[in-house]
Amino acid sequence: MTQTADNDTPRRPSTGGSVVISVDAMGGDHGPAAIVAGIAQSAEKNPDIRFVVHGPKDELTRLIAKKRGLSERCEIRDAAGVVTMNDKPGQVIRNAQGTSMWSAVDSVRAGEASVAVSCGNTGALMALSMIRLRKLPGVNRPAIACLWPSRNPQGFNVMLDCGADIRADAPDLLQYALMGASYARNGLGVERPRVGLLNVGTEEHKGRAELKQANELIADAQQTGGFDYVGFVEGGDLPSDKTDVIVTDGFTGNIALKTGEGTAKLVGDFLKEAFAKSILSKFAAVLALTSLKRLQKRIDPRRVNGGVFLGLNGMVVKSHGSADSTGVSAAIKLAFQLAQSGFQDRLAARVAEAAANVEEAHALNASSTDGALS
Amino acid sequence: MTQTADNDTPRRPSTGGSVVISVDAMGGDHGPAAIVAGIAQSAEKNPDIRFVVHGPKDELTRLIAKKRGLSERCEIRDAAGVVTMNDKPGQVIRNAQGTSMWSAVDSVRAGEASVAVSCGNTGALMALSMIRLRKLPGVNRPAIACLWPSRNPQGFNVMLDCGADIRADAPDLLQYALMGASYARNGLGVERPRVGLLNVGTEEHKGRAELKQANELIADAQQTGGFDYVGFVEGGDLPSDKTDVIVTDGFTGNIALKTGEGTAKLVGDFLKEAFAKSILSKFAAVLALTSLKRLQKRIDPRRVNGGVFLGLNGMVVKSHGSADSTGVSAAIKLAFQLAQSGFQDRLAARVAEAAANVEEAHALNASSTDGALS
Repeated sequence: MTQTADNDTPRRPSTGGSVVISVDAMGGDHGPAAIVAGIAQSAEKNPDIRFVVHGPKDELTRLIAKKRGLSERCEIRDAAGVVTMNDKPGQVIRNAQGTSMWSAVDSVRAGEASVAVSCGNTGALMALSMIRLRKLPGVNRPAIACLWPSRNPQGFNVMLDCGADIRADAPDLLQYALMGASYARNGLGVERPRVGLLNVGTEEHKGRAELKQANELIADAQQTGGFDYVGFVEGGDLPSDKTDVIVTDGFTGNIALKTGEGTAKLVGDFLKEAFAKSILSKFAAVLALTSLKRLQKRIDPRRVNGGVFLGLNGMVVKSHGSADSTGVSAAIKLAFQLAQSGFQDRLAARVAEAAANVEEAHALNASSTDGALS
Repeated sequence: MTQTADNDTPRRPSTGGSVVISVDAMGGDHGPAAIVAGIAQSAEKNPDIRFVVHGPKDELTRLIAKKRGLSERCEIRDAAGVVTMNDKPGQVIRNAQGTSMWSAVDSVRAGEASVAVSCGNTGALMALSMIRLRKLPGVNRPAIACLWPSRNPQGFNVMLDCGADIRADAPDLLQYALMGASYARNGLGVERPRVGLLNVGTEEHKGRAELKQANELIADAQQTGGFDYVGFVEGGDLPSDKTDVIVTDGFTGNIALKTGEGTAKLVGDFLKEAFAKSILSKFAAVLALTSLKRLQKRIDPRRVNGGVFLGLNGMVVKSHGSADSTGVSAAIKLAFQLAQSGFQDRLAARVAEAAANVEEAHALNASSTDGALS
């Protein structure tokens, strides 16, 4: 208890300083042209970023040359192979050498880039990142953290795990709490994040056995972890201002994330249909255009594009496979912010500090049966 | 394979005929006044419903007398006790005799009402219903089915289990598929429902071990179950027109349901804020009022109010605790529709038919470990 939360309080660097980002140009649904367009968009907005771009050299050279001033800021790494969306993680690990994804992650491993960004297959990217970057000492399961539009002042909540691993036991959930709190501090500037554990009710007797154990472990770690634990939260709290970080296993997190995205899209579509119904409503829509654009901007999934892999020796940002140039640019912006805040070192320090606690917790984690009726 | 789907093809009764619905007047967030108001709303719209209302006699007599013509259609059952939202299911079972919830369920048990409707504590209502009505022969875990606004012609998809039990193994998931298909046929009029199994991806190698087993069991049951199996679906498919029934365990279903509701509410709030931003946008909002109301009606959670308990010897509809009179009236309407379609008998027949298959499946269900990286 000698250390406080200060060791990863967000630091805004006074000198800009150039950040190098490694980008996998392949594997996205819209091909390398959309990704290069996203790089160009970021480059224009932020003069402090330089890029290492991975993919077939000739095609990338041609695409990059089309964007004014971009070639001076990009280094191209030739990689002929592509990991597709249908490749299984196991196959990828055996055959990935020579692919753009492998090459992009290896730039971080070699230390020539601070973060890798890829639109490719999530399972393959995580498997590859684990093999090439290795887990941080003390981390059992790495996690994917994603951002959720919320009513909080910072505009977003962090949820993890969003799908790195379908399993998580109590000590893993504790680790997610620590890593998520660190991310909220460094990525969102929340000084003392509040952490909640996702469950089917807020009462202590609810949920699976591992959730009841994690509930105690996380409560005990508040002081050393530099966060406040708010206890169990429910699906409806994901966008709420009750918590900044939501901890859950990767199965539940993935379902919640896609359900939220799907619901927002449904409401958006219904809204469009409602305004297209009659001449008067079409006229109203024209007048309401500014308001509707304001709404769209707040819930645009492209603005929150980027799942961050936590718990590895190096940073990797997973962009949506369907990301267009705006989405790719948002993922690069997130990568840049995390690199500038020195997040990776702070997270590593935090995890090392907690490793002893987690090991202790692992020892206590006797397997037990699920709870009764929720 | 001698029986076909015809045994529970929806039947629209030509003669109206009176339906008796048992209503628990207590346990909702807004007290008995809101529930009696909901009963009055239903009574006015539908002359074919009669009610047995459970709660403190004096208070209910007074509330019902205030609504013109309502007392002739209601029978009051005095019950002084109330199950609160904080009562644990275990406590409830021991102490529930004499509560309005117990009394409401017992009206169905005694055969004097076709369906019970309650706004009370979900866990307690399910525990009580299981004790008093008993599970249908062949059913291992009863489930709660709820409706999800969707792009399908019927306007809704069915999801189950929404939170009756946090666990479900492969044979349970098969049973949910059969019961959900039967509900979609009888409650939504979908002749040959399509069934999907909720998972973190649509590829066959994804997800937990029990999902891979259920995937095979459900595929094998399509013919006898009178449904089409579309395979794995993801969170984003819940409101889609790819499937009519979504099968999942009660933990995941509860999280998805509340996440969807929370997201729809967030988007709605953002929409209001966007329109309140400036004078011009306020003016646009006035013009757009019809369109906005049309939208609100489509996503109004009160319109889809009512989780149906499946797998018991009798029908129970769980209304939202926060339901106002419109919400209560929607739950009663759902209860009426199900009673009129003869759903309970059809479901029982369907389950009995499938019981042999399920038993066989149970025997095959060797416990095994989870799958690898999702």
